[in-house]
Amino acid sequence: MFDSDLDLHNSLCRPDAGDRMYALATELFPICRSITGNGVRRSLDLIERRIPLTRTETPSGAQVLDWTVPLEWNIADAYIKNAAGERVVDFQKNNLHVLNYSAPVRARMSLDDLKQHIFTLPEQPGFIPYRTSYYQERWGFCMSQNALDALPDGEYEAVVDSTLAPGSLTYGEHLHIGGSADEVLLTAHICHPSLANDNCAGLALLAELADAMRPLKTRYSYRFLFAPGTIGAITWLARNEANARRIKHGLVLSCVGDGGGPTYKRTRRGDALIDRAMTHLLKHAFAQANVVDFFPYGYDERQYNSPGFKLEVGLFQRSQFATFPEYHTSADNLDFIKAEHLQSSLQAVSAAIAVLELDQRFINTAPKGEPQLGRRGLYSTIGGDKDSYAKNMAMLWILNLSDGTHSLLDIAERANTPFALIAHCAGLLAQKGLLTPA
Amino acid sequence: MFDSDLDLHNSLCRPDAGDRMYALATELFPICRSITGNGVRRSLDLIERRIPLTRTETPSGAQVLDWTVPLEWNIADAYIKNAAGERVVDFQKNNLHVLNYSAPVRARMSLDDLKQHIFTLPEQPGFIPYRTSYYQERWGFCMSQNALDALPDGEYEAVVDSTLAPGSLTYGEHLHIGGSADEVLLTAHICHPSLANDNCAGLALLAELADAMRPLKTRYSYRFLFAPGTIGAITWLARNEANARRIKHGLVLSCVGDGGGPTYKRTRRGDALIDRAMTHLLKHAFAQANVVDFFPYGYDERQYNSPGFKLEVGLFQRSQFATFPEYHTSADNLDFIKAEHLQSSLQAVSAAIAVLELDQRFINTAPKGEPQLGRRGLYSTIGGDKDSYAKNMAMLWILNLSDGTHSLLDIAERANTPFALIAHCAGLLAQKGLLTPA
Amino acid sequence: MFDSDLDLHNSLCRPDAGDRMYALATELFPICRSITGNGVRRSLDLIERRIPLTRTETPSGAQVLDWTVPLEWNIADAYIKNAAGERVVDFQKNNLHVLNYSAPVRARMSLDDLKQHIFTLPEQPGFIPYRTSYYQERWGFCMSQNALDALPDGEYEAVVDSTLAPGSLTYGEHLHIGGSADEVLLTAHICHPSLANDNCAGLALLAELADAMRPLKTRYSYRFLFAPGTIGAITWLARNEANARRIKHGLVLSCVGDGGGPTYKRTRRGDALIDRAMTHLLKHAFAQANVVDFFPYGYDERQYNSPGFKLEVGLFQRSQFATFPEYHTSADNLDFIKAEHLQSSLQAVSAAIAVLELDQRFINTAPKGEPQLGRRGLYSTIGGDKDSYAKNMAMLWILNLSDGTHSLLDIAERANTPFALIAHCAGLLAQKGLLTPA
Repeated sequence: MFDSDLDLHNSLCRPDAGDRMYALATELFPICRSITGNGVRRSLDLIERRIPLTRTETPSGAQVLDWTVPLEWNIADAYIKNAAGERVVDFQKNNLHVLNYSAPVRARMSLDDLKQHIFTLPEQPGFIPYRTSYYQERWGFCMSQNALDALPDGEYEAVVDSTLAPGSLTYGEHLHIGGSADEVLLTAHICHPSLANDNCAGLALLAELADAMRPLKTRYSYRFLFAPGTIGAITWLARNEANARRIKHGLVLSCVGDGGGPTYKRTRRGDALIDRAMTHLLKHAFAQANVVDFFPYGYDERQYNSPGFKLEVGLFQRSQFATFPEYHTSADNLDFIKAEHLQSSLQAVSAAIAVLELDQRFINTAPKGEPQLGRRGLYSTIGGDKDSYAKNMAMLWILNLSDGTHSLLDIAERANTPFALIAHCAGLLAQKGLLTPA
Repeated sequence: MFDSDLDLHNSLCRPDAGDRMYALATELFPICRSITGNGVRRSLDLIERRIPLTRTETPSGAQVLDWTVPLEWNIADAYIKNAAGERVVDFQKNNLHVLNYSAPVRARMSLDDLKQHIFTLPEQPGFIPYRTSYYQERWGFCMSQNALDALPDGEYEAVVDSTLAPGSLTYGEHLHIGGSADEVLLTAHICHPSLANDNCAGLALLAELADAMRPLKTRYSYRFLFAPGTIGAITWLARNEANARRIKHGLVLSCVGDGGGPTYKRTRRGDALIDRAMTHLLKHAFAQANVVDFFPYGYDERQYNSPGFKLEVGLFQRSQFATFPEYHTSADNLDFIKAEHLQSSLQAVSAAIAVLELDQRFINTAPKGEPQLGRRGLYSTIGGDKDSYAKNMAMLWILNLSDGTHSLLDIAERANTPFALIAHCAGLLAQKGLLTPA
Repeated sequence: MFDSDLDLHNSLCRPDAGDRMYALATELFPICRSITGNGVRRSLDLIERRIPLTRTETPSGAQVLDWTVPLEWNIADAYIKNAAGERVVDFQKNNLHVLNYSAPVRARMSLDDLKQHIFTLPEQPGFIPYRTSYYQERWGFCMSQNALDALPDGEYEAVVDSTLAPGSLTYGEHLHIGGSADEVLLTAHICHPSLANDNCAGLALLAELADAMRPLKTRYSYRFLFAPGTIGAITWLARNEANARRIKHGLVLSCVGDGGGPTYKRTRRGDALIDRAMTHLLKHAFAQANVVDFFPYGYDERQYNSPGFKLEVGLFQRSQFATFPEYHTSADNLDFIKAEHLQSSLQAVSAAIAVLELDQRFINTAPKGEPQLGRRGLYSTIGGDKDSYAKNMAMLWILNLSDGTHSLLDIAERANTPFALIAHCAGLLAQKGLLTPA
């Protein structure tokens, strides 16, 4: 198992993964998702073409932790027509045009009255905002400030052909069973409508990774969870209170398709293994990585890190949410994400999984003085060869610190050397009998 | 008790306090104080018009820890007269002119001989220095270098009409009794003569604070101690060796009336609650705060932090002692201090008391996931409203960290949010039943 | 014993030591040393004129930890002659010209064939490199790139008149017996040929220090070890596996004669007493000191810090190895080192020994409040006298922290005051009965 470090990473992050993820994001993009309803189910259908899913439906009104599952929302159409009967705002063209979870309405009114129900972004006048009203029943539309400014006074017809009715909340899971019942949770929110980075990208990455892992034997079991934000995570936790303690490590994935960042937000604990792995990996793989401390706002890491669970789940993103101009607007579209960025995001997550899988403590079997590497063919003559030098140093660090108290990640951190090289060299030393598992 | 956080702070720091403190400092300023004698007693008389005091007299010759209470010093007059009989140096004009604790003298001598007994500040030629000679009996005068330079050669008469005789050392205390016998010590030195910042300001602040606290019910008992520097603190400690262990927190106040700093000097321990409270509060309340580590020199924090007591007593000042040009000179006069600076110093001390009173640990009663704040009317829609955003974040931080191991100050520090806002929001959450005391 | 702090330092670091060390380095310089052979023995002869040595010979083929003692190498002569019979490369002129441990050879060949056996430094064309081949049998020469470029094509004769034969590996030790069997290890490698800084300088410093220590009574025993690099340290450890645990502190000395640095490389543990002592001392004694964390490459600290021994042995140098252009070239000659640099290096090491000898914990016998220093003649009036001020502060720090948990070095670190002043003032306080050993 041990000598498969690079195999593992390469198996998880296949060369054509970027294009495949972009294609899935493209399919997911047009669907009008929300925290409940058929948009979620249709999205899970697309994901299920790649990986088997177990779906869970939780009925409206169910008590989930401190919350109640709301009425199910579905929508057929929505528009604003002018006096001439022309659609000046059309849900069919962009599902962001409707206030997500909008109550149904069919009414004629003046522009002034209508404006009470219209949301724009005056400082980004060309973008349609993404707005929701899950727990306060109201109706509304979103449009660009420019388009609003172009509307003449007069009477308009506002129609939201939606339903808010008893139904259920849907989430889907894929469990990859490893050697241990201990789990790694990987999750992405499935509730946002046509926002490419936030989170068609995360859904696509999760599906690709789950698919790539299927043939592999892993140390941990891996739970891939596709659930609506907040209420979905809360519902999952409510239904899995006892099992949640199996989750030893985890990552929330959102906004993984743009070219910014990368950003890693630590767990509440701050020095969990996933925190150390991500910090180490991003530092070595990216010129500038943004590692931020936990704060109780953002995505579902809020729920997993709540004091009743304290699961060690971090958040991985490229650009940090709410810091890029396209965030929660119509500019977060398929042009904003790229296959290459999805690929490098997948690489980072794959590398983190490699750390979780391969980190362990060894014992140097020749701990008194340095063992003579030369006669074992392990010591490259140090010349102009930078790779040989790095390998030699990695081996010396591993031998020096492998006293049973330092894991490979500990060594990689202290030696300021990529984990992959440390793990590779540990494999070579183990083959020669110089290391034995602690 | 809990919802009175702002009440507490506002009760301690009344809007007209600055003027009242300045007025008391003005009354205290002309008195010639020293480590013993009637100057201390007259100063306590003025303070006693505001708050009841218990006075303690300890006789000359009494053994106090490693020290002995010295002879009592009193002075009626002092001057240098020139050959024409004119007073060229006059204690009646400024009591700094006499070497504090000067032995009596009445002698005629040449200017050259007289100069052996005259102290000046050549680098600040317009200022009279403040000098003392408590434990080595000698006589002397202090004057400005300019005035000395203007004296013509000739014979002069030097008179110090003082007494050094068995008497006693005086200090005064005011004890505010709270719910617990555990005490907070607040103290200011009462031994310096006409120096406004050092320490008429500290005495005035202490009297104002003690008076403002009188109607309040507090968690701790508060001991307000007006004592001479070094020997006074040592005498108090000698007489209260057993009771001193009741002191859980404390502040020495000196130089609190100028516009510099603020400066906080940590306790010997360095991370005591008072250290953390002051560091947190000054960072949030002032653009630039100077927080320095403990060192065994300065004011009476030296004595309280000695290894035989290790009381957690810090030092609060505006400009740090010995760093401002007016320090220990005649320029530390009533023009150097301002009512507004006294007011903001009082605010800082009041805020620290609010932390001591209100800091506690809570338990989140809905710890699994986030509780739904919206249905409890606790969650403001996040819009342009910065205050609402800050409140929401404060509530999320409190809920996330209230697992019984984090106090409100811990949370304020980690959230980088003012303690007052954290305490206020904790009150709101407690009202809704989402928090219960740990 | 305690009041001898300055005595101790001055006894170890005598005023004429620099010249004496330079003279010994000059004698050692011409000898062709290697990891075995008569060069080591002749070097020990020179050192033995200063201090008694115990020599140990370990036969070729002996198993030492993971290694085997190699064949002994000796060399009588080596040269390259041109067709005219002139020596164009001559070991008699500079012993760096031969590949250290070169197998014997006597052959004629073309310049092109000869070049396969010649090492140069193309980027430092005027310097002869220092190269070795201990564990791979081959023959070779080292020369400057300029000299090689000047050789015309033609036939050359290459002669290395060396022997590789069963013999032994030699090291020498001097043990200074102190009050305790606990040892401080001071060691320098004796295997490099004509390189002045690396390590004639280290050998000379070690001999001078051992000699200076002879009349002194010390707390610890001191082991001065002159051994070949790597295989010598490994041989010593192999022969002293049980006794090695007596070594409580140690320093490897190399490159101590140039004007760079100083450099201190920490032990694997990182906060050993020797680490703290060296960091403290270098910070106070040099404008810029380079203190680097341990890494498992360099000199014999690699062996002593291996996980099977974990001895707290650091490395002291002036310029850090491999960072100065003269390193491992013919430019590391007697012009590169200076008596004054040897002297200041000796000062640093002597100061470190003073810390090891004198660091201890005391108890303040008057811990309640400050003791009255004035009546004991310990308190200088603070005036313009900077030395008195520093002494007063040192005494106040010692009294404040001497509660049995802080050693003098702890106090020196916290007070940011040179250890020597702290130790001196502790002596004064102890004389007056204010301190007693903890």
